[in-house]
Amino acid sequence: MNYRIEKDTMGEVKVPADKLWGAQTERSRNNFKIGAPASMPLEVVYGFAYLKKAAAHANCELGVLEESKRDLIAQVCDEILDGKHDDQFPLVIWQTGSGTQSNMNVNEVIANRAHQIAGKVIGEGEKTIQPNDDVNKSQSSNDTFPTGMHIAAYKKVVETTIPGIIQLRNTLHKKSIEFNDVVKIGRTHLMDATPLTLGQEFSGYVSQLDHGIIALENTLKHLSELALGGTAVGTGLNTPAGYDVLVSKYIADFTNLPFITAKNKFEALAAHDAIVETHGALKQIAVSLNKIANDIRMMASGPRSGIGEIIIPANEPGSSIMPGKVNPTQCEALTMVCAQVMGNDVAVTVGGTQGHYELNVFKPMMAANLLQSAQLIGDACVSFDEHCASGIEPNHKVIKQLLNNSLMLVTALNTKIGYYKAAEIANTAHKNGTTLKEEAVNLGYVSAEDYDNWVKPEDMVGSLK
Amino acid sequence: MNYRIEKDTMGEVKVPADKLWGAQTERSRNNFKIGAPASMPLEVVYGFAYLKKAAAHANCELGVLEESKRDLIAQVCDEILDGKHDDQFPLVIWQTGSGTQSNMNVNEVIANRAHQIAGKVIGEGEKTIQPNDDVNKSQSSNDTFPTGMHIAAYKKVVETTIPGIIQLRNTLHKKSIEFNDVVKIGRTHLMDATPLTLGQEFSGYVSQLDHGIIALENTLKHLSELALGGTAVGTGLNTPAGYDVLVSKYIADFTNLPFITAKNKFEALAAHDAIVETHGALKQIAVSLNKIANDIRMMASGPRSGIGEIIIPANEPGSSIMPGKVNPTQCEALTMVCAQVMGNDVAVTVGGTQGHYELNVFKPMMAANLLQSAQLIGDACVSFDEHCASGIEPNHKVIKQLLNNSLMLVTALNTKIGYYKAAEIANTAHKNGTTLKEEAVNLGYVSAEDYDNWVKPEDMVGSLK
Amino acid sequence: MNYRIEKDTMGEVKVPADKLWGAQTERSRNNFKIGAPASMPLEVVYGFAYLKKAAAHANCELGVLEESKRDLIAQVCDEILDGKHDDQFPLVIWQTGSGTQSNMNVNEVIANRAHQIAGKVIGEGEKTIQPNDDVNKSQSSNDTFPTGMHIAAYKKVVETTIPGIIQLRNTLHKKSIEFNDVVKIGRTHLMDATPLTLGQEFSGYVSQLDHGIIALENTLKHLSELALGGTAVGTGLNTPAGYDVLVSKYIADFTNLPFITAKNKFEALAAHDAIVETHGALKQIAVSLNKIANDIRMMASGPRSGIGEIIIPANEPGSSIMPGKVNPTQCEALTMVCAQVMGNDVAVTVGGTQGHYELNVFKPMMAANLLQSAQLIGDACVSFDEHCASGIEPNHKVIKQLLNNSLMLVTALNTKIGYYKAAEIANTAHKNGTTLKEEAVNLGYVSAEDYDNWVKPEDMVGSLK
Amino acid sequence: MNYRIEKDTMGEVKVPADKLWGAQTERSRNNFKIGAPASMPLEVVYGFAYLKKAAAHANCELGVLEESKRDLIAQVCDEILDGKHDDQFPLVIWQTGSGTQSNMNVNEVIANRAHQIAGKVIGEGEKTIQPNDDVNKSQSSNDTFPTGMHIAAYKKVVETTIPGIIQLRNTLHKKSIEFNDVVKIGRTHLMDATPLTLGQEFSGYVSQLDHGIIALENTLKHLSELALGGTAVGTGLNTPAGYDVLVSKYIADFTNLPFITAKNKFEALAAHDAIVETHGALKQIAVSLNKIANDIRMMASGPRSGIGEIIIPANEPGSSIMPGKVNPTQCEALTMVCAQVMGNDVAVTVGGTQGHYELNVFKPMMAANLLQSAQLIGDACVSFDEHCASGIEPNHKVIKQLLNNSLMLVTALNTKIGYYKAAEIANTAHKNGTTLKEEAVNLGYVSAEDYDNWVKPEDMVGSLK
Repeated sequence: MNYRIEKDTMGEVKVPADKLWGAQTERSRNNFKIGAPASMPLEVVYGFAYLKKAAAHANCELGVLEESKRDLIAQVCDEILDGKHDDQFPLVIWQTGSGTQSNMNVNEVIANRAHQIAGKVIGEGEKTIQPNDDVNKSQSSNDTFPTGMHIAAYKKVVETTIPGIIQLRNTLHKKSIEFNDVVKIGRTHLMDATPLTLGQEFSGYVSQLDHGIIALENTLKHLSELALGGTAVGTGLNTPAGYDVLVSKYIADFTNLPFITAKNKFEALAAHDAIVETHGALKQIAVSLNKIANDIRMMASGPRSGIGEIIIPANEPGSSIMPGKVNPTQCEALTMVCAQVMGNDVAVTVGGTQGHYELNVFKPMMAANLLQSAQLIGDACVSFDEHCASGIEPNHKVIKQLLNNSLMLVTALNTKIGYYKAAEIANTAHKNGTTLKEEAVNLGYVSAEDYDNWVKPEDMVGSLK
Repeated sequence: MNYRIEKDTMGEVKVPADKLWGAQTERSRNNFKIGAPASMPLEVVYGFAYLKKAAAHANCELGVLEESKRDLIAQVCDEILDGKHDDQFPLVIWQTGSGTQSNMNVNEVIANRAHQIAGKVIGEGEKTIQPNDDVNKSQSSNDTFPTGMHIAAYKKVVETTIPGIIQLRNTLHKKSIEFNDVVKIGRTHLMDATPLTLGQEFSGYVSQLDHGIIALENTLKHLSELALGGTAVGTGLNTPAGYDVLVSKYIADFTNLPFITAKNKFEALAAHDAIVETHGALKQIAVSLNKIANDIRMMASGPRSGIGEIIIPANEPGSSIMPGKVNPTQCEALTMVCAQVMGNDVAVTVGGTQGHYELNVFKPMMAANLLQSAQLIGDACVSFDEHCASGIEPNHKVIKQLLNNSLMLVTALNTKIGYYKAAEIANTAHKNGTTLKEEAVNLGYVSAEDYDNWVKPEDMVGSLK
Repeated sequence: MNYRIEKDTMGEVKVPADKLWGAQTERSRNNFKIGAPASMPLEVVYGFAYLKKAAAHANCELGVLEESKRDLIAQVCDEILDGKHDDQFPLVIWQTGSGTQSNMNVNEVIANRAHQIAGKVIGEGEKTIQPNDDVNKSQSSNDTFPTGMHIAAYKKVVETTIPGIIQLRNTLHKKSIEFNDVVKIGRTHLMDATPLTLGQEFSGYVSQLDHGIIALENTLKHLSELALGGTAVGTGLNTPAGYDVLVSKYIADFTNLPFITAKNKFEALAAHDAIVETHGALKQIAVSLNKIANDIRMMASGPRSGIGEIIIPANEPGSSIMPGKVNPTQCEALTMVCAQVMGNDVAVTVGGTQGHYELNVFKPMMAANLLQSAQLIGDACVSFDEHCASGIEPNHKVIKQLLNNSLMLVTALNTKIGYYKAAEIANTAHKNGTTLKEEAVNLGYVSAEDYDNWVKPEDMVGSLK
Repeated sequence: MNYRIEKDTMGEVKVPADKLWGAQTERSRNNFKIGAPASMPLEVVYGFAYLKKAAAHANCELGVLEESKRDLIAQVCDEILDGKHDDQFPLVIWQTGSGTQSNMNVNEVIANRAHQIAGKVIGEGEKTIQPNDDVNKSQSSNDTFPTGMHIAAYKKVVETTIPGIIQLRNTLHKKSIEFNDVVKIGRTHLMDATPLTLGQEFSGYVSQLDHGIIALENTLKHLSELALGGTAVGTGLNTPAGYDVLVSKYIADFTNLPFITAKNKFEALAAHDAIVETHGALKQIAVSLNKIANDIRMMASGPRSGIGEIIIPANEPGSSIMPGKVNPTQCEALTMVCAQVMGNDVAVTVGGTQGHYELNVFKPMMAANLLQSAQLIGDACVSFDEHCASGIEPNHKVIKQLLNNSLMLVTALNTKIGYYKAAEIANTAHKNGTTLKEEAVNLGYVSAEDYDNWVKPEDMVGSLK
């Protein structure tokens, strides 16, 4: 392979000739061979591209960067955001915990690519713009990485996670209305209970997701606070006056998202409670989705020897050995995602606890976990919606059969004859394998006519809105 | 021991003669000998007392309960809330997951105690009020237990947790102002960095707690939704019209807290995302507190061979073998609490995922964990405040010494001579064990006069508000 | 209340006159009002009693403690182990992370009680034995607390946890044999699959627990290593030669358990990986128990509208509103315990990561969580065994019906006519609501006679051992 | 793009013409667009390659597969293991929880590639070998996926994880011996304590890793048990007699690892406690590594205003804004890995709890987490060793200075003058800012001569082995 020589403050480094990165990126590549290469999420790189462009603009506006340099930097940032340099970011999550090396990776790529745009050859002549003094001007890894990760996380949540959840929520809501009058047996403790409608069951799922979306949106305010302008330790050393507010305004403009400068930069560098907070809401949603997916696969179980109250789409052959088998595979993918999100929450939490003094150095790990969780939930909701939820149909025949068998219809008699006598009826019918009505009449507690008037499943489901 | 006979729908049970509970409580005592007795939190029992009283009022107002019964029930509930019957609730967390047995424990105690108040002898004559038909009227365990746990949780959070956090937050804020001009070395990656003030460090802690309190308060809306009125499966079977809204109004009145009836009762029984949500915020606060406590103990480390920048109160002899030792024991208690809360969060999360059909049956475990976390955080904040935070003082001598030694003051030169030359100065001083100024001058990059003008720690900490 | 004055190196403290504890215990009581009082597990106190007695013996044998003092100390330790002083240990888990104050609590109680035994009045005259110089001789909190917690944990695991698991395992094994020839439908993905026997299902549970017990026993070796003899930082400062081995031998004798001195005392103070390791095995067992309890409640679901393949004991009325309801309450208690253990595992893990330099200061929290998990698992297994597992019976009628309906019996044809044709038969029967046999014959793939010969559920369950 | 038509039991599917996979793989690609493509770990695919080859051999030897088919299958498996078809496995983790689709992916690739090897064109003519009937013969996804994941996990642990840990352990052991006589101050509660040697500190780390390796090795027995031969539900339906033992023997031969057939196939399909068990040990090791990395970065903190007792290698510029900064970046990468592993442990645990009836359907998620944790720990240990641990050197000057300052040397006087007087000396010196010796003499408790004889740090570190 061909190499060129790049330098940093520690000396010379050989870098693959065809790559835009520089000395520090290459050092990191060599020093951190942990897990798969290039595991640092591209979303974080794009977050950096937004902020580097914003910083160039703010620096220029505040008189500390020439317009020509601003324009070069902005041009490369746009190229990065267009996905033209995705292969120039080879670093891993498991590097320095401040993400310094990924910040430098971006700085180096911008500087070298700007050099090219300026018509020069990388590695020859003085750099048109300097990675540290120009691209990184008024910045530190310590404020850029958290800024990049907030941008990445916020975008992912509003562009992927929330739309995915809403798509699923809307389908469940539609089903809830469709199934509004499908009276079925309720189950508590997995055991037969009093009736409700299938639509009511689905309305509970909708309510869970509605609460989850609110909870997630509640966290966005904290996430919208950007560390940029804090530089090394939060004091804003080496930044021009007004820079923090201005650079956040540029980021808000470029991303079209309501980012603001963090009220307290010391928190913004030293603690990532905002990441913990947002991930906490993702975890809550995972909890909801897990319940929903579990219910659906249990209700769909069968086809002949399970519950079988609903029918879900058959998307693929379910078994390599059992011919004709259909499985709730979307439920399974979704619940695996939920388990992963629960695990990621612990990783994020542990990382969050360990900020020391002026810096939390679990940044890349926390960012990667949040982005993964946010992506997986969004994608899995869409997949689950399209390939399962939207195709759910009641199996009316089974529903009716299971409903009418139930001993728990006896509950309707509580207000007529009291809990104790009602219990006696149910217990006797259970013991004898008979119907409630038979025993109610036999025991002399209710006449057949009253029984028919009082025990009507459709009257036991409350008022349907 | 003396016994009396109590009955339920399954038959007779011997109950200790001096106890107010009945057959179902006694069955549970015998069937669930798991862990220490009486582990069900009393706060949940009190939550039940509020709701039983509210239900009696609502039932009476809606014409399904006599006034005399309402008053008897209400009177016993008030006694329970006065702590007069704390020894009548012997059940454990590890019972049925709906908490049915604790609901019945409350029903039985109320019924038997009402019998006494009515001048009768327990176990003799017909019960003045019936545990199921009267005390439990218009209710089910499935809606009472979640209601009781929401009441208990909400009260604990607003009466213990938030005040405790605010107390600590206010002390840290006061310290932040006091220490506003104590310039000290910053540390990132645990390594020397550019300066900031001790007040700025503390302002970061305050900001963390401020965000945490907002996050916690954001969850209260969901927690204020009460399941009561959903009865067995969420449909409100066997409740009079308007009951759910009315009973919540009574609970709000009696507790003086803004409880409302849950919009969706199916969610409120089958899922406890509200508990997951509130606990998630507690976990976030644990993350913040862990960072704060860690910083404080590291800065207080020494007294002679550590960092030693701050002095914390000496509350007790620190060692049984090392005479004269003083330790950051409040930091330790607090961080142990944080670890517990992180663990509890997983327990609550796992419980939250496992609602099946119309009921989540991890209620008592979820309630107990939330109450423990909320109590521990509140108490630990107060303890940490009173015995540690409020007594923190800077060790000015050490702070100055460590500040002036630092090589990272060189950062002030970046904007004057560029990052590369500044790095050379720092590296040379580090290698030679000399001062930055010596090497800056030696290398010919800065005059002694410029150095003194440019490198002033007090100018490197930004504008102090 | 009456008080007496006790002293420590920081001065005088008022202590309730009727209590045996001294100044440091009282300071801790006042400084750590976090959660319920006296939350420090008594098991840890008893662990201390064993080690204090052992230390007194070892110190005497090695010539650094008089026989009379040894005997006094030993006598009080025996009283503690007899439960005579349970109310003398008022401290909480949430104290100093080394447990120093609980060590001193034990030292003080022993010293004061010894003074009484020696015929003196507490608080009058010179102490007969000194808490630090005599009771704590050759010890530090830093090596006594981990020793006490290892003793407590080991005893709990071998006396409560393992016997409880084995009791349940043996019942499941007995059931597995009983149900050996009960052929039933299998379910994968919750969907109908090929048959197996109910005994085979139970044999899987037994195998899980067998593996779990081995995993738990594998951890006991690490747990048997005692820190005692390391004193303050692991070097054994202020201990006589040979002390560490000798004192462990005494502990082994007194407890009748195979304790040995830790090979490396620095690990034994600074890290509690042994606790993490043992708790990890408890968590694995919780995973197993959760699966088992879930299966049982799903198979027992009904009675009329669920799976209903097995019948579990009815131990209590299941519902306060639905008369005659029976629920899988033991499954619920057990799975709540499992969730708690999973949460505790995270608390223990987090605590385990945070040893700093020569000491881990999350000791009381780690000990309390391990003891809780070990107790809950042991108790819950016994409860689940006695009140559920041992009474499980197959519902033969339901089992047969569900088995014979299943379309997955078609799998038996794979080796005769190939997967593709078999799938066609199953799919057609599913579509038409017919039987496999009908469609097999209709499609011309199998004769009726062959079908009957080839598709026999009882031949599809493998060789039953 | 060009397509060809592939078929399965549900009908026709268009597959990219240049790909070896078939209908079911393509369905899965379309139905599960969740997260990044091809996230299913290649290690699992290789595990499948081993087992498909072994199954072909066993089937042939037992007379149910022709030799020519065996050889074709084996040849393709070898190609897969040579990495020649890495781009033919496009599926994601988040598919069906049994991994059926990845099993079919492997079956389809083998069948199509075999067709090519047989000189045919894919998609033309009858398949030379059938994916279900030949490649999958005597198998089900339900037993192949767990077998594949056990193979993958076992290999990863013994080939990557354990060697990585041992490499680091050996370096730490070497350092422990090198630093055997470097007496330094000990620290408990982060506060000054009695002395020990740097070698002793490192010996604690070695002991942690030694225990961790044993714990990890203890789990391998369970992991060596293979599900293969259980087929659909564990009964071994459609397998020839003796197949399970024979196929495991082949796998053991091909992998050169001690795999055996699982004693209980029902557990092996329905529960993945073996994965939970092994991951539990990885988590324990993460706990250990976290402690070690934390200690090292705290001891290396500075260079001028921290602890500074050891010097770690400077591998890269530490800051984009602070020139000359060097950071403990390897510690940070390692502790981020530890946090991830702790999170993954929860994901694996949650997945492990949720086996239902005959199948656990969290297999791909559990496998992926275990493989990631095992890889990250192995890699991070090597990286930490090569770029940090092996270059650690004591800073003798700092160590001596901090040692001699310490007030905790007073502990040596306990056995001479008692704990109380020793405490008075330490407290007085602390208050006056004087030395222990001065105050010891001033207070009249010890003569200067005795002091010098009794208080020698090098005598306080115990016997150095």
